[in-house]
Amino acid sequence: MRPVALLTDFGLADHYVGVLHAVLEREAPAVRRIDLGHQVPPADVWAGCFLLRCAWSSLPDDAVVLAVVDPGVGGDRRPLAVRVGDRWLVAPDNGLAAAVGVAAEAVAIDWRRMGLPEPSATFHGRDLFAPAAARLARGDDPATLGDHVSPDGLEPCPIPETTADGNTWHAAMVHCDRFGNLITNLEAAAVPEDVVAWYGAPRPARRVARYGDAAPGEVVLLEGSSGLLELAVNRGSAAAVTGLRRGDAVDVTADG
Amino acid sequence: MRPVALLTDFGLADHYVGVLHAVLEREAPAVRRIDLGHQVPPADVWAGCFLLRCAWSSLPDDAVVLAVVDPGVGGDRRPLAVRVGDRWLVAPDNGLAAAVGVAAEAVAIDWRRMGLPEPSATFHGRDLFAPAAARLARGDDPATLGDHVSPDGLEPCPIPETTADGNTWHAAMVHCDRFGNLITNLEAAAVPEDVVAWYGAPRPARRVARYGDAAPGEVVLLEGSSGLLELAVNRGSAAAVTGLRRGDAVDVTADG
Amino acid sequence: MRPVALLTDFGLADHYVGVLHAVLEREAPAVRRIDLGHQVPPADVWAGCFLLRCAWSSLPDDAVVLAVVDPGVGGDRRPLAVRVGDRWLVAPDNGLAAAVGVAAEAVAIDWRRMGLPEPSATFHGRDLFAPAAARLARGDDPATLGDHVSPDGLEPCPIPETTADGNTWHAAMVHCDRFGNLITNLEAAAVPEDVVAWYGAPRPARRVARYGDAAPGEVVLLEGSSGLLELAVNRGSAAAVTGLRRGDAVDVTADG
Repeated sequence: MRPVALLTDFGLADHYVGVLHAVLEREAPAVRRIDLGHQVPPADVWAGCFLLRCAWSSLPDDAVVLAVVDPGVGGDRRPLAVRVGDRWLVAPDNGLAAAVGVAAEAVAIDWRRMGLPEPSATFHGRDLFAPAAARLARGDDPATLGDHVSPDGLEPCPIPETTADGNTWHAAMVHCDRFGNLITNLEAAAVPEDVVAWYGAPRPARRVARYGDAAPGEVVLLEGSSGLLELAVNRGSAAAVTGLRRGDAVDVTADG
Repeated sequence: MRPVALLTDFGLADHYVGVLHAVLEREAPAVRRIDLGHQVPPADVWAGCFLLRCAWSSLPDDAVVLAVVDPGVGGDRRPLAVRVGDRWLVAPDNGLAAAVGVAAEAVAIDWRRMGLPEPSATFHGRDLFAPAAARLARGDDPATLGDHVSPDGLEPCPIPETTADGNTWHAAMVHCDRFGNLITNLEAAAVPEDVVAWYGAPRPARRVARYGDAAPGEVVLLEGSSGLLELAVNRGSAAAVTGLRRGDAVDVTADG
Repeated sequence: MRPVALLTDFGLADHYVGVLHAVLEREAPAVRRIDLGHQVPPADVWAGCFLLRCAWSSLPDDAVVLAVVDPGVGGDRRPLAVRVGDRWLVAPDNGLAAAVGVAAEAVAIDWRRMGLPEPSATFHGRDLFAPAAARLARGDDPATLGDHVSPDGLEPCPIPETTADGNTWHAAMVHCDRFGNLITNLEAAAVPEDVVAWYGAPRPARRVARYGDAAPGEVVLLEGSSGLLELAVNRGSAAAVTGLRRGDAVDVTADG
């Protein structure tokens, strides 16, 4: 049986996450369950995509990911199961299903085909997505979930991409983590070692290898754990020091 | 072995929830564990009952539910294990044990009978309720937990019930969820399709089938995922828009 | 296979905790995982030590504990695996590895010895500590993680110890829990039954056996669930009533 990893914007104050786990356990007894996070801000597809991307490569190769950030629940966005590598991602077609790269296979989840009761108008996580994930975890044929559809033409992930202009890369802040680190969309591997980052202060942030290389209070640029460049303050919060927020621009230049 | 679902007001900042899991794992190795939620506001039995009710029908049929919202810990409220259908609910007799309907069987948990050390005065979750849940999960005879007691006469659940008056149903807000949806105690199945809700504004909220049917900013009435009518604002917070809180009245009428 | 218990300061808003679980599941499929808590305040080694101590005795005897509160990540603090009793604690040598008493055995975790890729500079939880915990859970020989080192000379745990002076014990607040209970570092078993606590108010807090023995609003002293004396207010918050915080002094006296 495949393990199932869960990512939602349901928060932990209500019963919603517990119900997803209960449905998985009921439909796929003893399935291994992994919480990737449930504190995605409500309806924030961007943040859901970002966390999914960061966790993706650490997952077991045969994982099923159940990702529900679904402001359009009950509307006409498609519920999908997409295969990327050997992993399955079960998610609404609102950008989330396209977060981790090109799918090799895609199925439009159909409650009639699955023999399920008609879903509620407000909780497809429980009524549609979790049952689909449970069946994939059990090893059911994906064709029993619904019709195969083209893996092209999915709603694109809303996270912006960088652009390059000579020795300058135009990047953006795409996530602020619990420690106040400001993570950009620029891969460290895509730029030279000695770049600096212009983020609105008179002087740019210099590149360091680790948090401990920064002076006290200094905003530095370093490669974070997902391979993306980030602004950080050692034992402090770059978000608090800089006032920058998600979406704000940062220019990375190779010539200082 | 039965799966165990946990619901508490312990929050996630301390070690208390982890300790419950540890005790379950120690007493019933490899037991399947499901977190229904631990952010019930401290001592809020009402909220605990509400979440328990909403999750109940999604649980595996043989689940053991360990529910601890226990402001009277160390006092004389009874620790109980009650069977409802084939599921067991282990909870204090303070309303929580009566949250999910009439019990077919009830046992007063007795640490002496269980051969446990004398419980601490402050953490019966660890010392009494979790060991009892672990034994039920393992399939121990419920009589080994303590004496059977009458399943009648339990402390009642504090969530109020609706009253009806001709074509008007007097309901109350009983929960506000993370998305700002205001959930009432009125079952959608108990009223006609074309009802409206009077909640203090000059005009009532009209009934819609799904969030997407609402105009921007409009407060609407719809059937939520637990079958209860709720006030909602599409991609917004009904709680923020209306200022209503738990316990506030709402009248639902069939004649507009 | 040994169960693995996790304690971090990663919070639940990002993907970091989910990634630890994913790595454990990938490296030790079907390992039993227990969350002891992830809301340790960022970089707060003291708080991590406290929660670890409180949970320790409830854990299965063969547990592996993966504890990551690691402000020095990427620096020269040692990553350790220490054995205390039959349990293993995998943690940085910054006080956390010394939180639960004298180790019988200690290993300096070495990514080269483990055959791992070079760790990132910022996420040793994922790259080093979780793989080490997974191998111990699987039953690998600890010597495959790195060289044995002396279990003496670990960085000490930062939680202060009490001092005694005749019939007076000089204690300190070492934790405030979700319910506002102010937990001290003084073991109830170390003092007589009839002590009182001087905490800054004109009159001391009297000792009671349980929350329910307190008058409404009264600050009382009682033995908490970990055997430590604490200040509490029945159905209220001692932290809010007293304004005391972690580190503040409290004197416990035996003569009233």
